Amino acid sequence: MIRTGAEYRDSIRGTRDIYIDGEKVSDVTAHPSFRPIVDIRARIYDMQHEAAFRDVMTCEENGERNAVGNKLPRTQQDWWDKRRATDTVLNEVSGVVTRVGDETVGEMWSLYDGQDVLAEIDPAFARNIETHIHKVLREDPFHVSANTDPKGDRSKAPQDQDPDMLLHVVKETDAGIVVRGAKYETAAAYANQAFTKPTIANWGNAALSDYAVGFICDLNSPGLKFICRSGFAGKAPADYPLATRFDEVDTLVIFDNVLIPWENVLFYRHTKAATFIRATLHRYSAFAFVQRNLKVADMMIGAALFNARQTGLDKQQAVQEKLAELACYREMINAHLTAAITLAEPSPSGLLMPNQSLLYTGRYLACSQLHQMMHIARELCGGQICVTPNAATFEHPETKAFLEKYYSINDTWVADDRRRLLAFARDLLNSDYAGHRLTFQLFAQSPPFNHLAAVYRNFDWDGPLAFVKESAGLSDRVNG
Amino acid sequence: MIRTGAEYRDSIRGTRDIYIDGEKVSDVTAHPSFRPIVDIRARIYDMQHEAAFRDVMTCEENGERNAVGNKLPRTQQDWWDKRRATDTVLNEVSGVVTRVGDETVGEMWSLYDGQDVLAEIDPAFARNIETHIHKVLREDPFHVSANTDPKGDRSKAPQDQDPDMLLHVVKETDAGIVVRGAKYETAAAYANQAFTKPTIANWGNAALSDYAVGFICDLNSPGLKFICRSGFAGKAPADYPLATRFDEVDTLVIFDNVLIPWENVLFYRHTKAATFIRATLHRYSAFAFVQRNLKVADMMIGAALFNARQTGLDKQQAVQEKLAELACYREMINAHLTAAITLAEPSPSGLLMPNQSLLYTGRYLACSQLHQMMHIARELCGGQICVTPNAATFEHPETKAFLEKYYSINDTWVADDRRRLLAFARDLLNSDYAGHRLTFQLFAQSPPFNHLAAVYRNFDWDGPLAFVKESAGLSDRVNG
Amino acid sequence: MIRTGAEYRDSIRGTRDIYIDGEKVSDVTAHPSFRPIVDIRARIYDMQHEAAFRDVMTCEENGERNAVGNKLPRTQQDWWDKRRATDTVLNEVSGVVTRVGDETVGEMWSLYDGQDVLAEIDPAFARNIETHIHKVLREDPFHVSANTDPKGDRSKAPQDQDPDMLLHVVKETDAGIVVRGAKYETAAAYANQAFTKPTIANWGNAALSDYAVGFICDLNSPGLKFICRSGFAGKAPADYPLATRFDEVDTLVIFDNVLIPWENVLFYRHTKAATFIRATLHRYSAFAFVQRNLKVADMMIGAALFNARQTGLDKQQAVQEKLAELACYREMINAHLTAAITLAEPSPSGLLMPNQSLLYTGRYLACSQLHQMMHIARELCGGQICVTPNAATFEHPETKAFLEKYYSINDTWVADDRRRLLAFARDLLNSDYAGHRLTFQLFAQSPPFNHLAAVYRNFDWDGPLAFVKESAGLSDRVNG
Amino acid sequence: MIRTGAEYRDSIRGTRDIYIDGEKVSDVTAHPSFRPIVDIRARIYDMQHEAAFRDVMTCEENGERNAVGNKLPRTQQDWWDKRRATDTVLNEVSGVVTRVGDETVGEMWSLYDGQDVLAEIDPAFARNIETHIHKVLREDPFHVSANTDPKGDRSKAPQDQDPDMLLHVVKETDAGIVVRGAKYETAAAYANQAFTKPTIANWGNAALSDYAVGFICDLNSPGLKFICRSGFAGKAPADYPLATRFDEVDTLVIFDNVLIPWENVLFYRHTKAATFIRATLHRYSAFAFVQRNLKVADMMIGAALFNARQTGLDKQQAVQEKLAELACYREMINAHLTAAITLAEPSPSGLLMPNQSLLYTGRYLACSQLHQMMHIARELCGGQICVTPNAATFEHPETKAFLEKYYSINDTWVADDRRRLLAFARDLLNSDYAGHRLTFQLFAQSPPFNHLAAVYRNFDWDGPLAFVKESAGLSDRVNG
Repeated sequence: MIRTGAEYRDSIRGTRDIYIDGEKVSDVTAHPSFRPIVDIRARIYDMQHEAAFRDVMTCEENGERNAVGNKLPRTQQDWWDKRRATDTVLNEVSGVVTRVGDETVGEMWSLYDGQDVLAEIDPAFARNIETHIHKVLREDPFHVSANTDPKGDRSKAPQDQDPDMLLHVVKETDAGIVVRGAKYETAAAYANQAFTKPTIANWGNAALSDYAVGFICDLNSPGLKFICRSGFAGKAPADYPLATRFDEVDTLVIFDNVLIPWENVLFYRHTKAATFIRATLHRYSAFAFVQRNLKVADMMIGAALFNARQTGLDKQQAVQEKLAELACYREMINAHLTAAITLAEPSPSGLLMPNQSLLYTGRYLACSQLHQMMHIARELCGGQICVTPNAATFEHPETKAFLEKYYSINDTWVADDRRRLLAFARDLLNSDYAGHRLTFQLFAQSPPFNHLAAVYRNFDWDGPLAFVKESAGLSDRVNG
Repeated sequence: MIRTGAEYRDSIRGTRDIYIDGEKVSDVTAHPSFRPIVDIRARIYDMQHEAAFRDVMTCEENGERNAVGNKLPRTQQDWWDKRRATDTVLNEVSGVVTRVGDETVGEMWSLYDGQDVLAEIDPAFARNIETHIHKVLREDPFHVSANTDPKGDRSKAPQDQDPDMLLHVVKETDAGIVVRGAKYETAAAYANQAFTKPTIANWGNAALSDYAVGFICDLNSPGLKFICRSGFAGKAPADYPLATRFDEVDTLVIFDNVLIPWENVLFYRHTKAATFIRATLHRYSAFAFVQRNLKVADMMIGAALFNARQTGLDKQQAVQEKLAELACYREMINAHLTAAITLAEPSPSGLLMPNQSLLYTGRYLACSQLHQMMHIARELCGGQICVTPNAATFEHPETKAFLEKYYSINDTWVADDRRRLLAFARDLLNSDYAGHRLTFQLFAQSPPFNHLAAVYRNFDWDGPLAFVKESAGLSDRVNG
Repeated sequence: MIRTGAEYRDSIRGTRDIYIDGEKVSDVTAHPSFRPIVDIRARIYDMQHEAAFRDVMTCEENGERNAVGNKLPRTQQDWWDKRRATDTVLNEVSGVVTRVGDETVGEMWSLYDGQDVLAEIDPAFARNIETHIHKVLREDPFHVSANTDPKGDRSKAPQDQDPDMLLHVVKETDAGIVVRGAKYETAAAYANQAFTKPTIANWGNAALSDYAVGFICDLNSPGLKFICRSGFAGKAPADYPLATRFDEVDTLVIFDNVLIPWENVLFYRHTKAATFIRATLHRYSAFAFVQRNLKVADMMIGAALFNARQTGLDKQQAVQEKLAELACYREMINAHLTAAITLAEPSPSGLLMPNQSLLYTGRYLACSQLHQMMHIARELCGGQICVTPNAATFEHPETKAFLEKYYSINDTWVADDRRRLLAFARDLLNSDYAGHRLTFQLFAQSPPFNHLAAVYRNFDWDGPLAFVKESAGLSDRVNG
Repeated sequence: MIRTGAEYRDSIRGTRDIYIDGEKVSDVTAHPSFRPIVDIRARIYDMQHEAAFRDVMTCEENGERNAVGNKLPRTQQDWWDKRRATDTVLNEVSGVVTRVGDETVGEMWSLYDGQDVLAEIDPAFARNIETHIHKVLREDPFHVSANTDPKGDRSKAPQDQDPDMLLHVVKETDAGIVVRGAKYETAAAYANQAFTKPTIANWGNAALSDYAVGFICDLNSPGLKFICRSGFAGKAPADYPLATRFDEVDTLVIFDNVLIPWENVLFYRHTKAATFIRATLHRYSAFAFVQRNLKVADMMIGAALFNARQTGLDKQQAVQEKLAELACYREMINAHLTAAITLAEPSPSGLLMPNQSLLYTGRYLACSQLHQMMHIARELCGGQICVTPNAATFEHPETKAFLEKYYSINDTWVADDRRRLLAFARDLLNSDYAGHRLTFQLFAQSPPFNHLAAVYRNFDWDGPLAFVKESAGLSDRVNG
């Protein structure tokens, strides 16, 4: 089934305790900090119904029309379809949004691959994940992810400090489990459900099993509070063309004794399942995540090249080389995405995973070099992105003529376009929103050292070792 | 002579045409975007009179007490005094401000070194620069710099497009010259005078000599308009502890037929002087400019280390290595500043220049690696700098308890300090202000490729060539 | 047709003027500097006939069995076949050799794509390239490439200095053209024919057309002299396990009035053809070239990991992260190769080119980061690669016992294996051969700035520009 | 006292068991692998007596003339004198040698600073180090350092494997201690005495105290065996102008029950002293070590610039920028050395240490970027360094004319000079010797991670923390 934007808006309106900028939000669909991103999410729902996009955005399975993003991947074509659907959305909205569903739903498929692990304690858990995977197809909810607890004192075990520092089960009832704690969740305030699971932490032994819990949380549940960071959307759109449209608001979700019905519990008191999901979490979802970097690269390339072309700087070798560096970054991401499909691997549950080694290496390279690419783009966009007056000043009767005069270059580049390009570049590279995006991209799926750890776990070291053993003439002993 | 803060405020109040955010500013000393930085500048003036700072901030010459920053450098001790005075200011205001006088006044000393060049056309010009250098000592104005014209079409010569795209002389009168054009000038809206000189451009031949003009512009002159970029100061100080105190507003200064009295004209129709000043402009002023990077490095180091220490992460080798990388960056700047004094060189006019090669290489290394150091600091400060609610939300009655609970780590680090540190780190690394500062540091003295060009021009290539000639056994022919 | 190793050896034996180390070489197949690489080339020929390799190394076309490397690529499978055949060779010889045919033959396909350009002056030229492409299939020669002339004075046009500084035509006869000049050609001394074409130079106008010549040169032609750099093969194999097997000797080939028969002339006095081939030269051949970097990466990874594992250093996070960096480099190359096939493009002549943008970006990234990866591998292999005695000292009766004692770690790693691994790592990272290989990889297809230029020429800039135009709200004017 | 070269040669001749290339060396002063470096060391001794160098190389103290390098540093001028003496040597020999005495003697001063630590067990130890420091002045021996034991199994404690894997005391006699084990020592085979001390290892507890031993070892002691790595000197000087003159041979010194007289024992069974010396070892000696990087940088700069100038490439912006990067590296080292003197610090024993933070940060930056600088130099020197025939081939009658023709560029750069420059560049960047030097520089004082650890231990973190505490408005709690 596919929902409409209106259905989505109705599903998040009204009942939640949402806080931002020191105030309580009465209608998240109307509040200036949330409305733009809610509108985009609604637009994605609506696109699924429109003739121009339906075939790209949806597919028919068993007589039902579902979102391509929710479809279980079983063939390389499925991955190309997902990639195309995401690109279609980003092109349609003319910008990059990440936590809009396609990037998070895959985390459930990872757990689906661990059905045998889940079945070890209780077959009901294996059934639950299967049920939810199909429920997503059937109900088309806005599904998000919840991983990171507040910092706490990581030098202490959870039970040796305020136990709520890691989300945990406080009670078990006939209806389900009652949980307590907090999680950072981008988009939670305007999404429908969150796949909630343990953070990376030192909870390996039995005493901590209350923390080894994973579940689907209905975000309309009583007892939730959504405490949001300040948004970047409430500014002048002419000066902040990206922040005012694409800000995705991060939230600290407080679980103040929230009941999770049994059918939504995916594992509980099950350290092994928790470990499994931590190790495989982004097996699928890293694909859509990395795909965003490709588009961010396009934005940097376009902004830099437009700026260089205005006065023919793109004829200089030094400028061409910097642009080519950006192009290399862009194509490197493209290469990893493409090759991850071409060399995709079957998963334990019979799905098709992007080639894990190519995907995780791509994620590391894309995220760890982003700041360097922004630096190159900043150099190419030049110092004027940081000294140009805002749009209102371009309109003031006493300054308008001067600014039009001094910001026009020639017939191709007049003041208005230059101001727009500079505002765009600033919002892409230098603004609160830009800094936020860069940090988000660095930490959203996990901190940088975990990106490298995922590479280490998924690379096939045996090939190189075998080649060197032969080439160096080592004895068989070295195989240990 | 040394002025007071009140005298400074009086000198900039009232008569100027200043525009920001689409509005005209009536009193620059009171406007929320300017007041914080005006207050700091005033504070610097007042510090000169206070017992606690007088000996560091001022010196006696010929029976008069002058600002250390304005003193002509003649000994290594002079440079240590200047360095100490600047540090004293930054420590007193607890932050970094750059365009507050000490960093710009040195550009006039560069021209002073070119007196013989100036005297070629008219000895009056050589006298004028000497006069102004002493006038600065005597009157203690807030002196700034003006270099960069709007972009224009750099593929065309000035006369082949709107001639105002580069500032030029439109008329000569008995009283002086009348100039027309525009210049970007940080701090111009609240400073007293600007040393205005040609930008880097293709104006080498006689036909363009109207563009080869340099002068001191009284910023209260009729015909000036100050069109400012939007400021970052008008936000909540608790959330933007740096932006709200240290934003230095950049301005596009329009010279709408401004009369420059002859005594303020430093050169005119004098391509050679223009070339001279372009090549030597930062001979002295780069010192104070680079010194700021040292303080910025300190801020990154302190923020990162405080954050790591909260939970003992500073015990991990990987974290220590990242901190050590920041320390290397910091000490590298320290090394160049220190060595530039130790190996200082006499200038043509008998002043003492910081060792030019060590100074310019230090400037390049400091500026070109800043983004990389911010990246390391960002990693060390962690993902929470981008998801933490603002201060107002920490105070809301329904969220206060939750945030205090979840943001406290232990007795050493309670929620309020953590929130402050995260806000500080965000404003240092990720905010509009942070992005602005990074770009400013990259372009303020000249674009990055010019930093390298200055290195190339000032390095002594002969030493390495002679060594290699000998070591490789090359013949004398290769000396050409 | 496929040749045997013996046929190849016969084809290069005897008649050539080859010089190395100040001596003339009587039999290139037997000389210690050439024999190892000649043996490998012969082995590749023989592999084609062996049951274990035939199906991988050869294919049947029109009833004839040909080398897979020589086959005209028309499908993605063709590229996978070529990639597999090359890997099979490298695995069989346990090392990396580059200029053995598969990497150079593709340059002729590039010219084949320019048939319409060739036909402009003389249809015979278009026919000649087609003939040679099929002749390669039929005769299975060892085909190499010749691009770079000696340095000359690049600040002068060829005719303003010794005209031989660029290879040029000195005479035209009924039999063909007579050429004069010199070219650097790796492997020329032991190959059969060279595709010779103009270097990158300033020969754009009519006056220089004698330099715009391309041809197939039979390397047994009278008038050729092969002046080789010193080889690295004549050392102790135990100490130089790579250099003594895989050194590919570079040669300065002197064309001392060499007759090129008309049927071997591919273009002549045809600046446009010369420009075409310069721009497209590595369209196909870059694939096999980049593929070598993958194997080099494997060698670094294997050596570093073996060394780290000896004492459990691979358990340390810092070591794992360095290894993961090497893995990222390796997979990045893999990604570009794989994606270049998946997104392959039809060529003007109906062949299938690897995706040009993905191929050239991959080449740049692989070559420009190689030194950095060697640095990481060097760190991981540790200081002992530079202090360990050679194999002969391990055998000396008075030192043998000490070295066995002090170089054994445990039952898995005994002295002999450690010595071998250290010798291997040293030869891979630090030896004359290692330095040579690194430089070769940097310059072999063209100097680094040309790698970036190829990226710039082949990237599709329109996509990013269109996206930014839309996202920034720019007017249609900016399309110029 | 200052020795002569002849006295030095006599002191090392004859009695030692030295092995290299599978053979025993009868006279180390005459053997082709050792003679060049022995000659340089002898030359340094002789320079001390020559009028042209005496004042730079020696100083008078208490009526005796001593080597400047051995003088205890007490003033900034002492450090400038040492720096100048070292530069004088490198200039005189036209190359870089490192382990020639001035770089190693300082390690004893570090221990001298720990006299109170030594006195804890036995005041004799404190006296011994003082005696040796003055003995060095008096006797002018060639003093070297010995730190690194063979690898062993670092995952096990010494006593759980072959105990000799770390050098240790096997017996105590009236005459002294008897030690057993092995150490890598550059130059040991031709030096006089070695300051031998524990490696970095897990020997913290009492059980391991036999390993906590430090002493001065007379390198003519019975029981020593010097097992050397293969040398790079025995090649054609024309092709390897650096390797054949400046190779410093590394040695595995076997201590096969060597008696160390009590007066040479500096500490024994004294874990605290071992820890002290590990932490402070390079306090002084890092200065001379880092100084070598400056000269290496000069060599790269000179080679690259000469090559670029041959055909005017140094006029290109891209080439100038690469040269400027090398200049920045060079001046960065200069800055750290200079500033370390200017901000020198008193040591516990009253000596003057180079500023520790500036010295260790300089060491890290110089060593960790060397490979990158070699990469830039390699690019600037171009592909011909890896394809040019050797000198003998330039002399062969059949090739001489061709090579002279094709290697001459113009009147300034004729073939012979070009060949020499290319040979020099290759030996500097690409040869066995070059690879060795790069690795030596990376590991000689300690592995890279220890360079960072030294930075971490010696940086003053309190300054940045105090500034951020103030600037971010943190409470006093955070001081913990």
